[in-house]
Amino acid sequence: MTRLTLAIDAMGGDFGPCVTVPAAMQALASHSQLHLLLVGDPDKITSLLAKADSALRARLQIIPAESVIASDAKPSQAIRHSRGSSMRVALELVKEGQAQACISAGNTGALMGLAKLLLKPLNGIERPALMTVLPNVQRGKTVLLDLGANIESDSALLVQFAVMGAVMAEEVLNIGHPRVALLNIGHEETKGLQSIRDAAVILRESPEINYIGYLEGNDLLTGKTDVLVCDGFIGNVTLKTMEGVVKTFLSLLQSQGEGKKRAWWLSLLGRVLKRRLAKQFGHLNPDQYNGACLLGLRGIVVKSHGNASQHAFFAAIEQAEQAVRQQLPERIAARLETVLPKSD
Amino acid sequence: MTRLTLAIDAMGGDFGPCVTVPAAMQALASHSQLHLLLVGDPDKITSLLAKADSALRARLQIIPAESVIASDAKPSQAIRHSRGSSMRVALELVKEGQAQACISAGNTGALMGLAKLLLKPLNGIERPALMTVLPNVQRGKTVLLDLGANIESDSALLVQFAVMGAVMAEEVLNIGHPRVALLNIGHEETKGLQSIRDAAVILRESPEINYIGYLEGNDLLTGKTDVLVCDGFIGNVTLKTMEGVVKTFLSLLQSQGEGKKRAWWLSLLGRVLKRRLAKQFGHLNPDQYNGACLLGLRGIVVKSHGNASQHAFFAAIEQAEQAVRQQLPERIAARLETVLPKSD
Repeated sequence: MTRLTLAIDAMGGDFGPCVTVPAAMQALASHSQLHLLLVGDPDKITSLLAKADSALRARLQIIPAESVIASDAKPSQAIRHSRGSSMRVALELVKEGQAQACISAGNTGALMGLAKLLLKPLNGIERPALMTVLPNVQRGKTVLLDLGANIESDSALLVQFAVMGAVMAEEVLNIGHPRVALLNIGHEETKGLQSIRDAAVILRESPEINYIGYLEGNDLLTGKTDVLVCDGFIGNVTLKTMEGVVKTFLSLLQSQGEGKKRAWWLSLLGRVLKRRLAKQFGHLNPDQYNGACLLGLRGIVVKSHGNASQHAFFAAIEQAEQAVRQQLPERIAARLETVLPKSD
Repeated sequence: MTRLTLAIDAMGGDFGPCVTVPAAMQALASHSQLHLLLVGDPDKITSLLAKADSALRARLQIIPAESVIASDAKPSQAIRHSRGSSMRVALELVKEGQAQACISAGNTGALMGLAKLLLKPLNGIERPALMTVLPNVQRGKTVLLDLGANIESDSALLVQFAVMGAVMAEEVLNIGHPRVALLNIGHEETKGLQSIRDAAVILRESPEINYIGYLEGNDLLTGKTDVLVCDGFIGNVTLKTMEGVVKTFLSLLQSQGEGKKRAWWLSLLGRVLKRRLAKQFGHLNPDQYNGACLLGLRGIVVKSHGNASQHAFFAAIEQAEQAVRQQLPERIAARLETVLPKSD
């Protein structure tokens, strides 16, 4: 494995360096070929590195940035005043080739806009999409996009998402002839928004795409499709709904039976069984797959949840690391050339 | 308790009379004051009643209907050709006062359109909304609407949904000064669709509504609000996503450890503990609260999931029965008069 450098927007997200710095150290400890550029306020970052292992510290460099884009800033305004911000500097490091990918837990709209501005979309792609890979109950994987990069999407955008999702499933997840479905509110052709119905017509006539029709929200985890396509608003709400329910279950599982007086051996057995259950459900835990990849750009950008924990932000760093090793943009670009209609 | 008559579209849904007839018998057995009008093909219904208890059978009447509206029919066309269909006849029974509510698992769009046509919206309501009451982890209840009656909703509609949801929470669930939130993709004011941002502005300035801001999908079950408002497309996807995840968990819980060889006492204890967990999670099981109430009409209509099981369809009948006892339309109408702006 060769050396690999990632840029981290250390100031983004609800907890800023308090989460990003320990997650970065965790990533350095797990990946010996990894180098990290932590972009942000040097004082804040340094103070969190006081007890860091010096061998790991040697593979970490602090890149100063003067400002932070607020999570609640209006993207258009934030982008206009982004010069010198930790998010923009991190993206510029990717643009200039000093880093191979960028990870941020900051303002989604600003990240999307800046990434598009600095890293440029691939040929044939109007707007990038946020994508994540979800586990499903068949122990397979489902590519879900868009997760919020485009809150409204016309049929042409949905088709581009479908193509990118299919390429992702085939090239990265090694799923041959991946099934592609549109998320809708019914299986019938007449159901749903016009943009979805129009996208269905185009996909049905695309020989390169193995389009299987509409799926509903309850099929998110059933593994009936390899790629599930929707607009960013729907994708965001769906993913967060799923995460909320999973977390609810896991916390109920943790708290089950607590506080009750029981024979010690019964408590012990209960704990053992609960731990087994938690393990079985663990692969559905949102923290395990935090990080959505911005697909369709000439560079790799991973968006972490704003409220990610250290472990979850670590998962986002790992996702960026994998995307670099898998040469995601190059593979998508190569496949897009054969799949998308020529625009000349 | 006084006698109460409900009309059931016996032919609607994926399984038609195979589900609706046994569910009807179950409802009759549970509610001694209940009378049911089963609307549909008399032959099919009768054949399923062969072994029915005659005392229960005496409180059931078959109302013949010639046709069924297909689940995949285009609503506008289905409504045009709806005369004599089981769904329409069931709604007409409510209109004519022969039944106090109607339950159908049939085509949502057609049910919504026909119900509006026959039962008319309340003053101040442009379009009715599908509403359900979800359990939350604080052992409270959350009113969620719209669930698919209106796939696109402008800000005025969202505000009407908010008002109806608040009335429902206050009058029926006895929640004083219920909190109302809009479902969005972020907490910040700048986030989301224009219709949602516009509705937020109106709600913030409505003294009658205890508007608390935006919530995200992961707050569906957390009990942070008493009423959660969204357009029908989002609501449908969110609810189905939640149901899919809950069902996934419950089935994993059921199958956990099956097929493994274990000491008999360990297996037994495992089963006991799993049953306890299933019981604890049972209140989140979608089958327990199947049935969405169409709010905003001068009559009660409950929409069941198309793929409802007998138990789930039974829950929908019970929901209609409760809505009648609670005089839902009358109470909403009375409150709307004080809350909504006068339209003269």
